[in-house]
Amino acid sequence: MKVRVGIAGASGFSGGELLRILLSHHDVEVSALYSHSEPGASIADVHPQFLGQCDLKFSPVPREESGWSNLDLLFLCLPHGVSSSLVPTIPPRVKVIDLAGDFRLKDPRDYLAYYGDSPPDRDLQAKFIYGLVEWERRRLVEASYVASPGCFATATILGLAPLVASNLIEERVIVDAKTGSTGSGIKPTKATLHASRVHSLVAYKAFNHQHVPEIKQALSSMGRGKELDLIFQTHSTPLVRGIYATIYTRLRADIPYSDIESLFQSSYRDSPFVRFRGKTLPDVSWCRGTNFVDLGLALSGRNLIIFSALDNLVKGAAGQAVQAMNVMFGFNESQGLCYGGGMP
Amino acid sequence: MKVRVGIAGASGFSGGELLRILLSHHDVEVSALYSHSEPGASIADVHPQFLGQCDLKFSPVPREESGWSNLDLLFLCLPHGVSSSLVPTIPPRVKVIDLAGDFRLKDPRDYLAYYGDSPPDRDLQAKFIYGLVEWERRRLVEASYVASPGCFATATILGLAPLVASNLIEERVIVDAKTGSTGSGIKPTKATLHASRVHSLVAYKAFNHQHVPEIKQALSSMGRGKELDLIFQTHSTPLVRGIYATIYTRLRADIPYSDIESLFQSSYRDSPFVRFRGKTLPDVSWCRGTNFVDLGLALSGRNLIIFSALDNLVKGAAGQAVQAMNVMFGFNESQGLCYGGGMP
Amino acid sequence: MKVRVGIAGASGFSGGELLRILLSHHDVEVSALYSHSEPGASIADVHPQFLGQCDLKFSPVPREESGWSNLDLLFLCLPHGVSSSLVPTIPPRVKVIDLAGDFRLKDPRDYLAYYGDSPPDRDLQAKFIYGLVEWERRRLVEASYVASPGCFATATILGLAPLVASNLIEERVIVDAKTGSTGSGIKPTKATLHASRVHSLVAYKAFNHQHVPEIKQALSSMGRGKELDLIFQTHSTPLVRGIYATIYTRLRADIPYSDIESLFQSSYRDSPFVRFRGKTLPDVSWCRGTNFVDLGLALSGRNLIIFSALDNLVKGAAGQAVQAMNVMFGFNESQGLCYGGGMP
Amino acid sequence: MKVRVGIAGASGFSGGELLRILLSHHDVEVSALYSHSEPGASIADVHPQFLGQCDLKFSPVPREESGWSNLDLLFLCLPHGVSSSLVPTIPPRVKVIDLAGDFRLKDPRDYLAYYGDSPPDRDLQAKFIYGLVEWERRRLVEASYVASPGCFATATILGLAPLVASNLIEERVIVDAKTGSTGSGIKPTKATLHASRVHSLVAYKAFNHQHVPEIKQALSSMGRGKELDLIFQTHSTPLVRGIYATIYTRLRADIPYSDIESLFQSSYRDSPFVRFRGKTLPDVSWCRGTNFVDLGLALSGRNLIIFSALDNLVKGAAGQAVQAMNVMFGFNESQGLCYGGGMP
Repeated sequence: MKVRVGIAGASGFSGGELLRILLSHHDVEVSALYSHSEPGASIADVHPQFLGQCDLKFSPVPREESGWSNLDLLFLCLPHGVSSSLVPTIPPRVKVIDLAGDFRLKDPRDYLAYYGDSPPDRDLQAKFIYGLVEWERRRLVEASYVASPGCFATATILGLAPLVASNLIEERVIVDAKTGSTGSGIKPTKATLHASRVHSLVAYKAFNHQHVPEIKQALSSMGRGKELDLIFQTHSTPLVRGIYATIYTRLRADIPYSDIESLFQSSYRDSPFVRFRGKTLPDVSWCRGTNFVDLGLALSGRNLIIFSALDNLVKGAAGQAVQAMNVMFGFNESQGLCYGGGMP
Repeated sequence: MKVRVGIAGASGFSGGELLRILLSHHDVEVSALYSHSEPGASIADVHPQFLGQCDLKFSPVPREESGWSNLDLLFLCLPHGVSSSLVPTIPPRVKVIDLAGDFRLKDPRDYLAYYGDSPPDRDLQAKFIYGLVEWERRRLVEASYVASPGCFATATILGLAPLVASNLIEERVIVDAKTGSTGSGIKPTKATLHASRVHSLVAYKAFNHQHVPEIKQALSSMGRGKELDLIFQTHSTPLVRGIYATIYTRLRADIPYSDIESLFQSSYRDSPFVRFRGKTLPDVSWCRGTNFVDLGLALSGRNLIIFSALDNLVKGAAGQAVQAMNVMFGFNESQGLCYGGGMP
Repeated sequence: MKVRVGIAGASGFSGGELLRILLSHHDVEVSALYSHSEPGASIADVHPQFLGQCDLKFSPVPREESGWSNLDLLFLCLPHGVSSSLVPTIPPRVKVIDLAGDFRLKDPRDYLAYYGDSPPDRDLQAKFIYGLVEWERRRLVEASYVASPGCFATATILGLAPLVASNLIEERVIVDAKTGSTGSGIKPTKATLHASRVHSLVAYKAFNHQHVPEIKQALSSMGRGKELDLIFQTHSTPLVRGIYATIYTRLRADIPYSDIESLFQSSYRDSPFVRFRGKTLPDVSWCRGTNFVDLGLALSGRNLIIFSALDNLVKGAAGQAVQAMNVMFGFNESQGLCYGGGMP
Repeated sequence: MKVRVGIAGASGFSGGELLRILLSHHDVEVSALYSHSEPGASIADVHPQFLGQCDLKFSPVPREESGWSNLDLLFLCLPHGVSSSLVPTIPPRVKVIDLAGDFRLKDPRDYLAYYGDSPPDRDLQAKFIYGLVEWERRRLVEASYVASPGCFATATILGLAPLVASNLIEERVIVDAKTGSTGSGIKPTKATLHASRVHSLVAYKAFNHQHVPEIKQALSSMGRGKELDLIFQTHSTPLVRGIYATIYTRLRADIPYSDIESLFQSSYRDSPFVRFRGKTLPDVSWCRGTNFVDLGLALSGRNLIIFSALDNLVKGAAGQAVQAMNVMFGFNESQGLCYGGGMP
């Protein structure tokens, strides 16, 4: 019997990508699409690419428990801050995977500082497992509530985790991260206009990106509480899809390159979506449209640069959420995610 | 003494391009920038590329005659329909060049049919000269009011005019026209989002584009009243700038290619911005950032295709308006417009 | 038991796309990849996006029958002119689908005129069935040799076929066709440089594109021998993937729009990959990455414009070839092709 | 009387951009264009955008002194390594501005290590002044030989120089630099194909980019011999034009932001092409097509990030070379360079 899933916020970029993936997933039936902005619209009005593949109409977001009752699982692809008001209305038998930032942070002060808003209820937050499958597989098996990681956070944490877990690098880490235009969402603004963006490369949110506490929290837990001194700077580029994180670290001691390579290989041996490429520096286009994250390394003396690339809508959002769903429901971790990217 | 010019609607794409051109024009002083949407803003807030080149602030659009009194010339870069309400408030000593469609059409029924709005006052419209310098040079010398041509219309008319004026082609003409994202203006919409537009090519406004009556009116006057049976279809492409018109015609008789080539050469001998390239099919990138329109031809039997390419923000808008200004004020026609395009 | 397939010319764009599709096809095993330019290379050297999904190495193209013996089916993704020298070396038990133009044209004079080269052996050509599944399904069931259609030809024929088969339009048809940069192939040239192409829109091959005889041949057979007077003009645009054909026709008589709509609907009722959208003008981005062709219409008087959009690497090449394979081997026609496109 | 200039290597991107700038420069006459790859070609064959603006033909590169004799100044836009073999054939009365890396490095070991080739003659190198006008104005007034800076080096040095000259930052500096596709030159490769590049973001040349010694040499001289511990990592992005350098530094002491702002303002008070934007993070599109470099800052504790943006073909190559020429010949420093960029 198929898992009946709903998507709230299905009219946006990650909602559409999630729908694309789930429509080909053999163990899932997409039962409902909810949208605040497009209630009543047909799928072909909002996502014309799905004509002939999906006949659902968008429903308004239910305001009561009964509205969700025919679902086994609900994905939330809503703007930050909306999920936390919605989750209390969802009956306990419906599992939840939230793609927004609402339930990722344990410390309410971090939420307030970086999202500028009052944090969600603490007991509710405590029920959420961080959905980074590569490092939380065991806890996700039993999870009912999942806070799916942010796109920049995924790229950064997967690149640093083996080194942090083995305590090989100094605290000071600089991450220079680049993203594309889908990262700004579907709502049109002057900055995401085609005419503006084709020629634009610009840094934004210096020293206060909301993924900073998410990255520090995850790595601190892997590093047994040791805190990173993290400088994290994001940039908009003319890519459509993609995250590219260039991570500058220093080793605590002289370590041969081959040892670092072995560490990465063993860390991700059982992770089908992490492709470690050694000294081949990854190109974000190799991951486009796929759930892969590609990692590469460059070492000179004790200076170690890690390069991490992924598709923000797949591994950074919808694909990763399906990967977590697969673990939660006992499916093969890569079920529905085993396709290669189109090039070019 | 320099001509004192103002720009109303200077916060948009053509307003910005006009400012760029006028700042380097030796006989002009930009005295005022007006904006409905950005009154009080500095130039660097709205067009950060001009920091260090222009210190003007945006003024609100004046509501009374006295507000315009220190100008010799006002350019209107406003949405269609706004110019016609503004022009009556402008004192007669201020000349006007309107870049919108308001005053282009002589027949008020055309305006109503294609702009869906009540046409401007008929006497006022009658004062406007159509600003296609290549074919209206003599009348523009004495003009006080100019209706600057539309971008698609410019490409199409310049490509067809020599043939129509010599009565060489059959009435039925098909124009397949392509444009880029700046053609949709600076106001962000879902269709002009970078993420949507990079991969998009789509036809729009079948059989009812507002440049149809403009093209027919201009060519009818050149063809001594003979009406074209014009099919005109526009397309959005991932270009940022550019118009490319592919014009399908049939010759009335067998004419050697060399005669047609001679006709184009002689028609544009004194037009510095028309570059006739013969059998070399023009690339829109050769015109980018310039006031040139490039024309090419292909002939097979009596089937003649004309290819016409230009930059919609320059020859299709701001550059052409400056060219008309040069003629109105007795400057060299190419004053301030003599730069080549950057490639790539 | 799975069909064992090989791909010759797997290092190019359509070869790569074919590999992507076949790796997810449940009834197929990709047994061998052949390349003239990259013999010995691993898949990750040439198509790094497939790391972790395919371990094959590229083999040199065999020169003798025995080299192909373990295959059931061979796809040829080679430059025009190469297939015809290769096919005679392939043993009869290996079926062949050729994606090049070598075996599409029945009349050797057409081949000579448009490909500028001596045509393939006439008896060999006669064995090939034209792989346009929507119109050749029955013959393809028994085919051993398939000449897969060209990308422009597919878009044009599918848009015109219902009208031609019902004899509803006048002979004179004008097709204004647009393509993207993958249409020029993987071999780098100055014209396909990123820096050149981003800003470029240019017509090419006036009156002599090699798809002209292919389109006329197919439509003549559907129209019981009546020949079109076809003007066909291609353009390069800054798309990466896509064909957009704007097809200008005239009806022979006054026909209500609803009748034409019905005709298209009934013509493609059993064709899962043709999406008829009526008056909604299709956007090529809705087909990107999929095997769909989207059709739309606009009618004014007797002037009928048909809009046809597809992905040149999928429906215009690799996907269509797999669709033909499915029919040849008795699989479901859409097996392995049922995924939606990623947007954006 | 105008300065007679020649351009060797005028068929490439920076050669074309240089021609564009010089054709509008009132004190210069472009006398000759030389090309190894296109001798005999007309300008319209190689740079079709200049049709109607320049009638020169490309000459072969002269092999003897007499070939250069009618010039006052020669610009060299040749691949690295070619200039050094050419300069000895140029008569002393012809001044030289070299845009390649040949004569930038004082230490021949650096040249060997980073360019992988034997360095130019030491005495010849010693005659060259580094053409970074903002910091070498006085020496350039009397220069006959100029080594024009690299594009990445220009962005990095201008961003760091005020801090290094005042000894305010720690030695360890990390520069994460991004460029566009024109940075790879006009020679087509698989990596610069439009189809590859649109979706690509990739790091390259880890720890061994040839601009590293150039940056260290320049900053060491400004910092009175103190050496930076520089990590410098370059990335390719889908931009066409542009350099964006994100420069991570640490202050030696607690310094208020306003002091740093004052330092930048005073350092560049007399430099018309450096636009210091304070806390506004620059967008590379604001500099596109112009000779400006835009600088911005972000400070948190002692962590200071400097953001530096420019157009690689103008301030990073051709424009900067003309700026140096202006100083060498006693013209106004911004002569011929005073235009704003087109947006978008």
